[in-house]
Amino acid sequence: MITLASDFGTPYPAAMKGVLCQRTTARLIDVAHDFPRQDVRAAAFWLQEVLPYFPPATHLVVIDPGVGTDRHALVVRAGEHTLVGPDNGVLIPAARRLAGDSTLETYTIDETRLESVTPTGDGAPASSGRAGSQSNSHGGPASNTFHGRDVFAPAAAGVHETELDGLAALEWLSPLEASPVDLELPEAALADDRASGEVLVVDDFGNVITNVPGGFLAGHNRIAANDDTVPVGETFAAVAAGERLATVGSHGYVELDVNQGRGASAFGLEAGDRVVLEAVHEA
Amino acid sequence: MITLASDFGTPYPAAMKGVLCQRTTARLIDVAHDFPRQDVRAAAFWLQEVLPYFPPATHLVVIDPGVGTDRHALVVRAGEHTLVGPDNGVLIPAARRLAGDSTLETYTIDETRLESVTPTGDGAPASSGRAGSQSNSHGGPASNTFHGRDVFAPAAAGVHETELDGLAALEWLSPLEASPVDLELPEAALADDRASGEVLVVDDFGNVITNVPGGFLAGHNRIAANDDTVPVGETFAAVAAGERLATVGSHGYVELDVNQGRGASAFGLEAGDRVVLEAVHEA
Amino acid sequence: MITLASDFGTPYPAAMKGVLCQRTTARLIDVAHDFPRQDVRAAAFWLQEVLPYFPPATHLVVIDPGVGTDRHALVVRAGEHTLVGPDNGVLIPAARRLAGDSTLETYTIDETRLESVTPTGDGAPASSGRAGSQSNSHGGPASNTFHGRDVFAPAAAGVHETELDGLAALEWLSPLEASPVDLELPEAALADDRASGEVLVVDDFGNVITNVPGGFLAGHNRIAANDDTVPVGETFAAVAAGERLATVGSHGYVELDVNQGRGASAFGLEAGDRVVLEAVHEA
Repeated sequence: MITLASDFGTPYPAAMKGVLCQRTTARLIDVAHDFPRQDVRAAAFWLQEVLPYFPPATHLVVIDPGVGTDRHALVVRAGEHTLVGPDNGVLIPAARRLAGDSTLETYTIDETRLESVTPTGDGAPASSGRAGSQSNSHGGPASNTFHGRDVFAPAAAGVHETELDGLAALEWLSPLEASPVDLELPEAALADDRASGEVLVVDDFGNVITNVPGGFLAGHNRIAANDDTVPVGETFAAVAAGERLATVGSHGYVELDVNQGRGASAFGLEAGDRVVLEAVHEA
Repeated sequence: MITLASDFGTPYPAAMKGVLCQRTTARLIDVAHDFPRQDVRAAAFWLQEVLPYFPPATHLVVIDPGVGTDRHALVVRAGEHTLVGPDNGVLIPAARRLAGDSTLETYTIDETRLESVTPTGDGAPASSGRAGSQSNSHGGPASNTFHGRDVFAPAAAGVHETELDGLAALEWLSPLEASPVDLELPEAALADDRASGEVLVVDDFGNVITNVPGGFLAGHNRIAANDDTVPVGETFAAVAAGERLATVGSHGYVELDVNQGRGASAFGLEAGDRVVLEAVHEA
Repeated sequence: MITLASDFGTPYPAAMKGVLCQRTTARLIDVAHDFPRQDVRAAAFWLQEVLPYFPPATHLVVIDPGVGTDRHALVVRAGEHTLVGPDNGVLIPAARRLAGDSTLETYTIDETRLESVTPTGDGAPASSGRAGSQSNSHGGPASNTFHGRDVFAPAAAGVHETELDGLAALEWLSPLEASPVDLELPEAALADDRASGEVLVVDDFGNVITNVPGGFLAGHNRIAANDDTVPVGETFAAVAAGERLATVGSHGYVELDVNQGRGASAFGLEAGDRVVLEAVHEA
């Protein structure tokens, strides 16, 4: 199984799927292709939360603002899972979760040794003599702006078709000598009755997902979020439609939500904003 | 085959797919994940119209404004099809269509007896001690806000892996004692030359789909829709681009459309609005 | 394998998938369902660029502003690929690429001889007596507004289940007597230091994709685009975030982009606009 995640919208993911289907009959499952554009941290959060629900798989991830620069292209083995994507940190939080107690193995892709991607009918005028293209050893072009199609998809197919213990033997992979670019999602500072954190992401429902562990809400009926006091509920429906609440979201973090509405608007919060939560003791 | 429908946007459906892939190799087909948010009636309409085109399948449906409340979680057998989702009426119109002449069998899911969903690497700080989580008999957490992932997806996988006649024997299913929450899409009142109905939904093209049966248009060249007289056409192209018309949509209902434009804007109508159609007799 | 492309949004593609799954176990891969509404040229461009990355497949394409008129419904064999869709030009640029040196074979679909699409539970009041529906020889209804579901999907399934050399023997296909409606994407006029072309499409990133072959940029450090001078870069990251550049996009054409921003806004250009590129010789 190969999962796909990107910030591509459409129809670019289809080109990656075409390349994958040329090289493998693996099942393809979309994680999302509308991650916030070039937002490595948001994608890293979502991948960390979603990929652990999959069985062992190859995860192709292309959120890649540095495409075409000298950033590495990585393959990361994490336990029974493998991740393929750019070396900008986007893979790492998910890889740590997926690895459990095992150590991450990190490889860099030598794109000049990958079997090149050649579309049917290539050689049309616009494609020949393209400036800035690199020829690889097979004579095909690798674009500088679409490594998802030309580098990461072929690599993901190659990884999928290889035994996990055989990655080191692939001629187009070599162990990454330095450490991969890391990315740590920020942790909240916790005291007894006070948590100081930030908004990790706002989801499609408008729910404000903070980095405050859900346990903070235990035993409280009301909290103040940046001085706004709201009830703590176990479910959205604990408050009337349109009303605000704090709850423990499905990822285990405190969320600031509105029942059948958008928490982000109601609380005036967006990704990256600071959030201070304080327990409110009833009189 | 398992179809998936929700109002989740992304990436939450991917978590459901991961859970499904852990438990079944069934084909997964997305119906839609952008149904109008928490709009049970709109989803019920679309499912009624779309699901009958599928071969026998398990249909996982999560439009669930009451998630985490004591609403039941259902499995409905409808002929050769099975539907899995919340007991809020969203499943019922489609189930009636799919059942044909057979009787609906309705079961309630005992989520404490379902094999729990445990992500790889669970046990991270944010997940432990989460307030408001329920432990089930397997020790795993079931969120209060994401039953799509934690209850309905495991149930859909379980149903898919069971013979239809074996549903009653599943230990985590028991016959629903009461009737399921029903939902009847409104029917138009029809007279010879007048139909009084309402807008069921507006589709992505902006076409206004009413609940007036298409047969009402038979024999008429022009009709008045809320006093606006427009031609009746067999195809969008019966009128010039940008012009309004009434036609029989692909679901068999009267639609108020604009050729290559948005009927909802041109007629000033949205879901739930009343529509009176009257035959216009030419002089 | 069957790929699907349309301008349908959701959930209409799901009805096509249901029909396909009734008739074939072929793998289904979405190319895109959010192509610009009824924009035959934009879809033709994207299909030309994306479909050649797929292995031999049946490509179901429904961008069909003339649905229900007397435009033909086509099957086009292009080398090892087959395309199914309306006769409005949308299939042709991709077909030419996919055919390579082989000649296109073009068939017209006789929809009255296709096995009709009958949903489970059909016969409900709204469906019976629908005005404007055509009965086919099997007695089922074919809508006038959704040939994707009622004509093209059944045809794509039928084509997929047939040997490529057996298309001519299908009773519901006959050779198209005239030529199909053609569509040529415009070509830029090229001189040594000047290219006069137009914007083919703006992609989801806001990148302005012109029809000027990438080779035009070779050897230049700066160009003027409609008198706006910008650097030529091999990658987006050749300029600072938020800065404009000209680069060779992944399709081999000159693109006018903004690193981590939207070129279309920064250059004030949209699909169809004229673009004159001129080499700027440094002093």
